[in-house]
Amino acid sequence: MWSGDDTALFPAPEGELLFTTDLMVEDVDFRTSYSNGFDVGWKLIAANASDIAAMGGRPWRAVASVAVRPETEVAFVDDLASGMAALCRKLDLGLVGGDFSSGREISASVAMIGIAGEGGPVLRNGARVGDALCVTGTLGGAAGGLLVLEEGIDADGSEDREALVAASQRPRPRVAEGRVLAGYARAMIDLSDGLAVDLGHLAEASGVGCEIDLDAMPLNRSLTWLCDRRLDTDPVALAVTGGEDFELLLSLDASDLSEARARVGELGTTLTQIGVVTGGPARIGDRDLDEWRAAGWQHLHNR
Amino acid sequence: MWSGDDTALFPAPEGELLFTTDLMVEDVDFRTSYSNGFDVGWKLIAANASDIAAMGGRPWRAVASVAVRPETEVAFVDDLASGMAALCRKLDLGLVGGDFSSGREISASVAMIGIAGEGGPVLRNGARVGDALCVTGTLGGAAGGLLVLEEGIDADGSEDREALVAASQRPRPRVAEGRVLAGYARAMIDLSDGLAVDLGHLAEASGVGCEIDLDAMPLNRSLTWLCDRRLDTDPVALAVTGGEDFELLLSLDASDLSEARARVGELGTTLTQIGVVTGGPARIGDRDLDEWRAAGWQHLHNR
Repeated sequence: MWSGDDTALFPAPEGELLFTTDLMVEDVDFRTSYSNGFDVGWKLIAANASDIAAMGGRPWRAVASVAVRPETEVAFVDDLASGMAALCRKLDLGLVGGDFSSGREISASVAMIGIAGEGGPVLRNGARVGDALCVTGTLGGAAGGLLVLEEGIDADGSEDREALVAASQRPRPRVAEGRVLAGYARAMIDLSDGLAVDLGHLAEASGVGCEIDLDAMPLNRSLTWLCDRRLDTDPVALAVTGGEDFELLLSLDASDLSEARARVGELGTTLTQIGVVTGGPARIGDRDLDEWRAAGWQHLHNR
Repeated sequence: MWSGDDTALFPAPEGELLFTTDLMVEDVDFRTSYSNGFDVGWKLIAANASDIAAMGGRPWRAVASVAVRPETEVAFVDDLASGMAALCRKLDLGLVGGDFSSGREISASVAMIGIAGEGGPVLRNGARVGDALCVTGTLGGAAGGLLVLEEGIDADGSEDREALVAASQRPRPRVAEGRVLAGYARAMIDLSDGLAVDLGHLAEASGVGCEIDLDAMPLNRSLTWLCDRRLDTDPVALAVTGGEDFELLLSLDASDLSEARARVGELGTTLTQIGVVTGGPARIGDRDLDEWRAAGWQHLHNR
């Protein structure tokens, strides 16, 4: 244990605790050919913090378990720790312990405790018919960045390549936004597996359907560059099926939308209505959600 | 997440929280040739709970991250979950969430939250010169069991083989004992890396030395059978250098020893004095602790 004793130790906070874990495995969840240790450590903290943000909570303490190959360079491990520490510092989150082993591939998992907001946690199951469905930020950037990296598409003088790669490799969990939106959201989830999959979770948990307007989808602007370079790529499909954008998807009373948008705007983040909650089937554009979901986010090994 | 939302969720308890994680990787920390999924799941919960026991705490909530090979049989994963659940039930501990991925080898990590006892946590750094050094239960059984499994030593009509294998594969973390001993211990640690290594941690944290009487060492009884079968095996060396016994090592005022022994005895567990805390060097028998430590517990891949 890094804390120097058998376990880390701290006074319990008041309120409700949140507890989550995420795992990243080499060549399944990342590749060392284009992700350095810093990227992997950062993203692992981001994925956990995003789960807590989706409950409207505040990340509080984390522990990490890391296995590396015998031949893994020490610099990779140092960078992994630095990447975790850098995002932990930004989030004012204590990385308090860990365990190491070795393996035939690099794998790392983080477990994180969060503290629910004063109004209590936001679950997935509260969406009501007539609610507005909204997302923070823009979608499709992480999937676009992964495509750029996997296919080795070069920058060709554009800054868009780096913007997409950053969306994929250094995601920013919407912690501050989640805490603000907890005051408005009836249901909330983070977009880790892609809009189609995560909207499906929210709709199923709430027992509702939805209509999503594809023209309203806030696309990452740099996708235009990518789709000019790679003409068979549909930016809307990346936004609907691409995972790891780590934006928040929420349902809220339509009358709260302008206030919620203004409050999130103070954090420099957009909030865009992409559809409505219905009592009918779950639909995205003119297709059933399940059709999109079947084409959803693939791990690297399925690509 | 198994809890069905982005994170698990529960009211914060009162008092101090303990937080720890342990990782087990195939062919480093276990082999599927002789450990089934149940064994691995059980031991992973045991290792975490043992860390919390060493602080005098009560295991409370856990999350698991598991990666399996594409060809891993579903039964192994089911057994892994069953093994975790079985020990969690015994310990009255909630397994509240998890994450899955795939990999080229099986790896599993558990992170666990515990609650410190009413008298506060027991650290490693409180040992004082003149204290009695004691261990719960017996030592060397887990190392003996691993030797039996790694070398394929058969039972030859004896029940000792199964006793050693059980010590290695289904360790019982000393949670109830730790909570009782927290009322007496000035310093405590669990024996996961072997007596020499873990005693070294305790002595260094406390800034003290020690004298350990090898004749006082409570050896696992079945080691006699093993050492009759394998004449070059020294049971005392297994007890001093073998890891994963998950017994507790503690220092306490010698005047408290008989009461502490009686209280732990009510739980059916022995408490044996193996030495004393000194102001001199750390010694085990007539050797320096560092000599033993250099020969200490090896992961499978070093065997």
